[in-house]
Amino acid sequence: MRLLVLGGDAAGMTAASHVRRAAPEVEIVVVERGPYTSYSMCGIPFYVGGDVADVDALVVRSPDAHRANGIDVRTRTEAVAIDPAARTVTVRDLTVPGAPEQELGYDALLYAVGAHPTLPQVPGADEYGLPVHVLDEGVTLRRTIEGLRPDAPIVVVGAGYVGMELAEALVVRGFEAVLLDRSPQVMKPLDADMAALVERRLVDFGITVKLGHRLEAVRPLADGLREVVTDLGAFPAELLILAAGARPNVAMAAAAGLRLGESGALRVDPQMRTSVDGIWAAGDCVESVNLVDGSRRNVQLGTHANKQGKVAGMDIAAVLQGRDRGEAAFDGHVGTAITKVCEWEISRTGITEREAVAQGIDHAAVRFEGTAKADYLPDAGTVHVKMLAEAGTGRVLGAQLVGNGQTGKRIDVAATWCQLGVTVQQAQFLDLSYAPPFGGTWDLLQVGARKLAAKLRLTPAL
Amino acid sequence: MRLLVLGGDAAGMTAASHVRRAAPEVEIVVVERGPYTSYSMCGIPFYVGGDVADVDALVVRSPDAHRANGIDVRTRTEAVAIDPAARTVTVRDLTVPGAPEQELGYDALLYAVGAHPTLPQVPGADEYGLPVHVLDEGVTLRRTIEGLRPDAPIVVVGAGYVGMELAEALVVRGFEAVLLDRSPQVMKPLDADMAALVERRLVDFGITVKLGHRLEAVRPLADGLREVVTDLGAFPAELLILAAGARPNVAMAAAAGLRLGESGALRVDPQMRTSVDGIWAAGDCVESVNLVDGSRRNVQLGTHANKQGKVAGMDIAAVLQGRDRGEAAFDGHVGTAITKVCEWEISRTGITEREAVAQGIDHAAVRFEGTAKADYLPDAGTVHVKMLAEAGTGRVLGAQLVGNGQTGKRIDVAATWCQLGVTVQQAQFLDLSYAPPFGGTWDLLQVGARKLAAKLRLTPAL
Repeated sequence: MRLLVLGGDAAGMTAASHVRRAAPEVEIVVVERGPYTSYSMCGIPFYVGGDVADVDALVVRSPDAHRANGIDVRTRTEAVAIDPAARTVTVRDLTVPGAPEQELGYDALLYAVGAHPTLPQVPGADEYGLPVHVLDEGVTLRRTIEGLRPDAPIVVVGAGYVGMELAEALVVRGFEAVLLDRSPQVMKPLDADMAALVERRLVDFGITVKLGHRLEAVRPLADGLREVVTDLGAFPAELLILAAGARPNVAMAAAAGLRLGESGALRVDPQMRTSVDGIWAAGDCVESVNLVDGSRRNVQLGTHANKQGKVAGMDIAAVLQGRDRGEAAFDGHVGTAITKVCEWEISRTGITEREAVAQGIDHAAVRFEGTAKADYLPDAGTVHVKMLAEAGTGRVLGAQLVGNGQTGKRIDVAATWCQLGVTVQQAQFLDLSYAPPFGGTWDLLQVGARKLAAKLRLTPAL
Repeated sequence: MRLLVLGGDAAGMTAASHVRRAAPEVEIVVVERGPYTSYSMCGIPFYVGGDVADVDALVVRSPDAHRANGIDVRTRTEAVAIDPAARTVTVRDLTVPGAPEQELGYDALLYAVGAHPTLPQVPGADEYGLPVHVLDEGVTLRRTIEGLRPDAPIVVVGAGYVGMELAEALVVRGFEAVLLDRSPQVMKPLDADMAALVERRLVDFGITVKLGHRLEAVRPLADGLREVVTDLGAFPAELLILAAGARPNVAMAAAAGLRLGESGALRVDPQMRTSVDGIWAAGDCVESVNLVDGSRRNVQLGTHANKQGKVAGMDIAAVLQGRDRGEAAFDGHVGTAITKVCEWEISRTGITEREAVAQGIDHAAVRFEGTAKADYLPDAGTVHVKMLAEAGTGRVLGAQLVGNGQTGKRIDVAATWCQLGVTVQQAQFLDLSYAPPFGGTWDLLQVGARKLAAKLRLTPAL
């Protein structure tokens, strides 16, 4: 019996490794387009910035290590079509020009091919822009910037996590970084008022931030310079980096008849089964349920890819061994995310006020400023907190934290509340830690819970 | 109608302030032995160490500020006896030697007199030892050490939070600090294996740690030096600081017939009512339910004092206004605590392995090392994690975190799990945040949950 895995990063290799352990009798073949397996995509900006010296440090487990574990990993190999009726996949060896296509049969197929970068469809972008989505692109980008003159202007398109992290790395390296986005705010997963605080920080750090700019063209100038043209102005650049997010890789799946969901990503059940028998999907190419509002969204994060890969692996092993269903279920996400940019920690969970309003969810929101340490200590830090709760029930709907103290990871408390349906009334009474180096006697998230309880006229409001 | 509050710190003043707002018709009198109200007891080591320059910075709200708010605060006044039948309290003005005692009547009485330091009952300790429990003692201590020669030896008795924080402050100030405790470990709220890591850190930082030493006497030597004598040796000291914890102040309450609980502190119901009609109690002098094991414990922490004071205030206002009961309930604690010592962050929640064993709770414990950031980043930090879960159910019973990364506050996630009865099976699936500056794709607490699920043979174990 054979498990065929398409895509050799977090989701695919987690599943493959699980099946390897749980079902030693199953042959496992992994087809991966790039040269790497199981690497940290989120680590790329740190490699480009130089915090991580050696690219191999980002590789958790190499193809050879997986092979030694009994998994037949075929790198630089591309899957081009799936035939669910015949249970075969057509693959192509990318290292041999004109190599003939090959059919690989499967008993179980895991579709874990991730996402591909959203590239601007404007003249010159293809030719002059460097995408930075997979690890070999990160290697190319670093080599490229190391060849530039020290204070060269570089334009980064995309003011999301990766774009901001790259712009920061460029400023630290002495380049002139221009961050462009057509959105009116940085970091769309934040509400605009919170994003404005982040934007101000980027500017203070030395990044030129240009929002609401639509890219129109990239043109060559003299001396290797390019001109990045937007509807609101043009910027000279020695390099254009494309970091405008990524879309789930679903074309091959859709062609094979797999059902797509409302988000445009693959629809799967809690065992990561697709709509087609014998085919599972996991990672950046699937959608999952947002447990706060019930919507289905495509969330591209390594944490989900790991969990989903494991759940898929358990279900695949069960099915290949003749059992009905795997013992684990991936029920969904609450949209937790975190980043550290320009020395600030930024995190969020649940839904935003913008989303609550758009969906007509009756709610209250509060925004306030606190300190990361007791306010009488030196360098107490400033933290901007925003929290939302549902009217009537008091259920915590979301939280956003932005500030210069070490408070980012505190979002996990709110994430737990969002995922378990904890109310602000309950949250007030939780026994959260206190000591002066970590804040006031009332934890910041509990201050938010109290304010929300009062604003929603819920009882008790401490 | 009159509310009489005994004790003007967190619990007492929180209750008084609430009643002031909720029941403007009630006269409120607060009797406080010291000169301060509403101050941060936990801030004292930072004031002694010099991080906080001015003692007033530790005072959240002064007696005058409370008076301006319509609360009759009588500082330097001591309550000496309660007559529950007559609903009176006998008080004494400490500022006038030989002042006559006075009777104060009440309709509601809140007993919030905190705890008093545990002083070693050995010859010389009284005469030569400086306790550091209330703010004026902190002021005295700082003045005293500022009069010592720069590298003077100082002995601190008590290797709990305050003792360790003080010893650190002394080393930073250039003194030779000796930390003594009769216990075989520092920080009794940790398991011995975790405490050993903390002890090693204290030693590396320059503190002389002497555990398992029973204090026997303090004797004067020449030149203002004292000799601190234990069963295992003697230590010269220019100063002896007593920080061996504190016991709930219950003598006056017990004399008035209020019921004490199994912990030796006052027994109260979820509205903070004592066993005697018309008398409430809150803060360091009461016990509350440990929600993990059901035991009743005396936990002396500002967070609880604030919450309990608020709950008591709500119930008192309700009763004085003819309603049956206040709308809030303090159901208990899970023993969450945190400190930062010698640049390390140390936190804990729930019960320890030692306690689980002693109580015969069928459980599994895991201990492992992780990093505070992704392991490929520079200065990733080391975090030692210990976690416990109940056999059969998988309910999280406790967690301990010790390390040099910024991970202390992550204990609040485990605290939420402990308080809400979350299982390790559930915990694995929570959407906790991930980015390289904050750890690996699997959050440390989820690594613990996975290990525990596997060890307890629970399903699923991711």
